[in-house]
Amino acid sequence: MLTSLVSGLEAKGLAVAVYSEAAGNPLISHVEQGVRAYKAHDADAVLSIGGGCALDVGKAIALMSHHPGNILDYEDDKPNGLPVRADLLPLTISIPTTAGTGSEVGGSSVVSRDDNHQKIIVWGAALIPRHVIADPDLTLSLPPHLTAATGMDALTHNVEAYLAKNFHPICEGIALEGLRYVNRYLVRAFENPSDREARGGMLMAAMMGAIAFQKGLGVTHSCAHALSTCYDLHHGLANAMMIVPSMRFNYEQQAEKFTTMGEVVGIQGSASEKGQGFIRWLGELCRTLKIPNSLSELNVKLTPRLLDVATQDTCHLNNTRACTRADFEKLFQEGGAHV
Amino acid sequence: MLTSLVSGLEAKGLAVAVYSEAAGNPLISHVEQGVRAYKAHDADAVLSIGGGCALDVGKAIALMSHHPGNILDYEDDKPNGLPVRADLLPLTISIPTTAGTGSEVGGSSVVSRDDNHQKIIVWGAALIPRHVIADPDLTLSLPPHLTAATGMDALTHNVEAYLAKNFHPICEGIALEGLRYVNRYLVRAFENPSDREARGGMLMAAMMGAIAFQKGLGVTHSCAHALSTCYDLHHGLANAMMIVPSMRFNYEQQAEKFTTMGEVVGIQGSASEKGQGFIRWLGELCRTLKIPNSLSELNVKLTPRLLDVATQDTCHLNNTRACTRADFEKLFQEGGAHV
Repeated sequence: MLTSLVSGLEAKGLAVAVYSEAAGNPLISHVEQGVRAYKAHDADAVLSIGGGCALDVGKAIALMSHHPGNILDYEDDKPNGLPVRADLLPLTISIPTTAGTGSEVGGSSVVSRDDNHQKIIVWGAALIPRHVIADPDLTLSLPPHLTAATGMDALTHNVEAYLAKNFHPICEGIALEGLRYVNRYLVRAFENPSDREARGGMLMAAMMGAIAFQKGLGVTHSCAHALSTCYDLHHGLANAMMIVPSMRFNYEQQAEKFTTMGEVVGIQGSASEKGQGFIRWLGELCRTLKIPNSLSELNVKLTPRLLDVATQDTCHLNNTRACTRADFEKLFQEGGAHV
Repeated sequence: MLTSLVSGLEAKGLAVAVYSEAAGNPLISHVEQGVRAYKAHDADAVLSIGGGCALDVGKAIALMSHHPGNILDYEDDKPNGLPVRADLLPLTISIPTTAGTGSEVGGSSVVSRDDNHQKIIVWGAALIPRHVIADPDLTLSLPPHLTAATGMDALTHNVEAYLAKNFHPICEGIALEGLRYVNRYLVRAFENPSDREARGGMLMAAMMGAIAFQKGLGVTHSCAHALSTCYDLHHGLANAMMIVPSMRFNYEQQAEKFTTMGEVVGIQGSASEKGQGFIRWLGELCRTLKIPNSLSELNVKLTPRLLDVATQDTCHLNNTRACTRADFEKLFQEGGAHV
């Protein structure tokens, strides 16, 4: 994929240099290496191709190649932080090869500190890539376990954005429709990787989730961030492990919204049957996608640090039901219990 | 409302001049008068307050005060037309006092030729007002018949945008959620004009409809445009008269989408019960809102010109089911038949 992209650009007379050291949960040092590569090449544009890691690192490279200071100065909501300036940024192009993160249509870049793997979120409207090429063909070779994990990331974005406590009916509409797309296409893409229509539907669902989560996210993401920080879990897999317990936690305070989500995924019955049915549907989806059944299978231990990181994460501040450290403890105990 | 706005601005040291000659279905001559008033005042901003007429004329005044040529040169999709240039436009602020048109968040301005009342649509992304003040309090004094007519406009935007044939899942999600808001709030606002929550919900539904209809509209709007051109009918009322026959016309080709719309407004039962139930729900809504039962009550006659204008209108080109002149004839015969 990369080879044909590079040769195609070179055939058009463009000088291309490749930086491809970032992988997994990206680190600030990956960004710094990328900035050095950008400057060494005297580049004037950043074209990112890959999953969430590549796209997030690409945004951060574009930012730090043309802004003063340290990337920590651009952390979202940081007191006395520095502004992301549209007029300083180079041309940015994102080409997603997974359908999950939606980073290609978002203004955030999530990278981890090298010392303690704490995730930091950089945000600026100007960081939204100028151009996006969302081509289902580029996701056809994604293996089923990554289709599952990234697809569950898209699903979690849509569900948590819909439930987040901020007022934003436009994002809620986009989130519900994104959920409808996940229901229609995720299992199809998992079971038949070459189903181009399903791949396209999931790319769309991923973009809708990322647009919708401007409204906010919730406890699932705070748990997932802690699991990635402490155990380097894949972000989408971490969301998949935590979404069912998190939704059980949220249900009572937002029963009406669960009814609506149940309707969207086709559950029949009374209001509460639809709402509870939605949580069952999530669990069945996790089993179909072969998401592990417990966090211990992934060598996760319920440590004080795991609880610290989850509690300090800001995503759950937008969860409608407040979540205490004791609540997080219970959520992690139930992680992977999809039934 | 206007007096307190003007005195408030003057108290801040701003020099204000009022142009308030436009009303009903606005004419190009209203825009021309407004441009003269703008230039006579040596203005540097356009603040529009009112319903769709005021907001659309405000956009056109902002455009034509700072662009060369005639407004007809800026008609949407006109061959060799002139471009709307963001860098030429003055500051624009829109304050809606109805919840229907959604013009406050849209890039179009619809005005009629003085000679034949033919509607022309000017479009440019830069025409979207820079600032919007959507305050439910400003709609509390709207009388019930205008609450009904403008509310049906918002409803029609959401429904036709959802059904339009272009591909745009984001707009479809926004449209469905806008429909949910109309279902929740329109009758409440009609029956109790001082219900602030319902007024706010309808303002939101109107904005969502206008955002969603970037995807396209359909036959209801082509009928409504013809009724306004030939009989000066209020645009929202014209949509209300035509939506039930138009949806009967659309049902078979898009049964699945009708099922979804039925679900959104709370219809129970099988897929086809929900879909057919949605059309019945529309008709019951029209009766609750005291929309007239036949076009002849409004002195409309089925003339060749009415059919010409509807057929030549471009909105129905985005209707999923193609609509011929004979189809339009049948639709107008059924206009106002809500049952």
